[in-house]
Amino acid sequence: MPDTPAWLAPHGKPWIRGESRVVYDNPWIRVTEHDAIAPTGRPALYGVVGFKNVAVAVLPLHDDGSVTLVGQHRLPHADYSWEIPEGGAPRDEDPLEAARRELAEEAGLAADDWREVMRTQLSNSITDERAVGYVALGLRAADGAHELDGTESLAIVRAPFREVLDAALAGHMPDMLTVAMLLRAYHMAREGSLPPTLARAMLG
Amino acid sequence: MPDTPAWLAPHGKPWIRGESRVVYDNPWIRVTEHDAIAPTGRPALYGVVGFKNVAVAVLPLHDDGSVTLVGQHRLPHADYSWEIPEGGAPRDEDPLEAARRELAEEAGLAADDWREVMRTQLSNSITDERAVGYVALGLRAADGAHELDGTESLAIVRAPFREVLDAALAGHMPDMLTVAMLLRAYHMAREGSLPPTLARAMLG
Repeated sequence: MPDTPAWLAPHGKPWIRGESRVVYDNPWIRVTEHDAIAPTGRPALYGVVGFKNVAVAVLPLHDDGSVTLVGQHRLPHADYSWEIPEGGAPRDEDPLEAARRELAEEAGLAADDWREVMRTQLSNSITDERAVGYVALGLRAADGAHELDGTESLAIVRAPFREVLDAALAGHMPDMLTVAMLLRAYHMAREGSLPPTLARAMLG
Repeated sequence: MPDTPAWLAPHGKPWIRGESRVVYDNPWIRVTEHDAIAPTGRPALYGVVGFKNVAVAVLPLHDDGSVTLVGQHRLPHADYSWEIPEGGAPRDEDPLEAARRELAEEAGLAADDWREVMRTQLSNSITDERAVGYVALGLRAADGAHELDGTESLAIVRAPFREVLDAALAGHMPDMLTVAMLLRAYHMAREGSLPPTLARAMLG
């Protein structure tokens, strides 16, 4: 890791959260409204969407340079979405364990080589959702059958990395974790962070 | 744009949203709970966080391969965050106009060459938030002074692209739009989608 640049230092005063009340709660989110004070000193009513799970995303990269994707209908955008395998890890669970579980449940795959390559905040002005992204290499069929929960109905496809990346950048796969993880894998392939034969198979 | 791959076709039944009620509303979000029916036929109580603005993100790429960033305290994660200029566009506003405004207000910059390079869904299992990302080239000082709203207190820094990308991938700049847009610009530089002298300055 490079030295931390000096310009990363923080400036100014933090937000003060103030009095708060929970205005909505379900098994996945809790919405809390705060009587906050902005760094400028101005009062501001601030609604924060708290996430009970950490998002985990797994890019399954096969030795031949192909990628396994899952397809599902999503309610919030009322659309069909092809994505890399994703799920939620309770805050007290190791995200890697959740990633292993999601890869097996959604794609029927296990991996010998797991690489954590991304830790991000998905929408940091309104939610506290965090996401951890893994590249999974050395793929093989997982033991046992897929075990989806009762609301999941998934399709599976395997396609060449370049084709998948192009489809994502053309807007056909708008899920942000999918777009970002494909770009991260491109970066790794270009920068020598993946096995050379795999990088060549991915980049074509 | 390449032909649309056949595997992008949707499968199965969509979600049915069912009866709904608004459980929280403020100027930025509206939370709605639905008595939904999953694609599997199972009933499911589904809370959707609706966003009133589209997120816009601008990566300001200077001719010398440096990037302008803004720093601010964020309430939801209670941390300090260095990011590319970002903001919200009301749903009836052209996101490009909002991007121009945010670049001027937050970074004091105007650009001669705007490229839309990303349209994504930020957290599509719970929110309907969309994001549009632009690379801004041909940068110059914007006319007039910065006009921040009463809750914003921003710092500004300009640093080399490589250093910024490395800091983001090391976890020092976790904002997802920032990470994804830096990786997108890396991809553009590598794939010949940016002016060659700029690409060389960025990649070093």
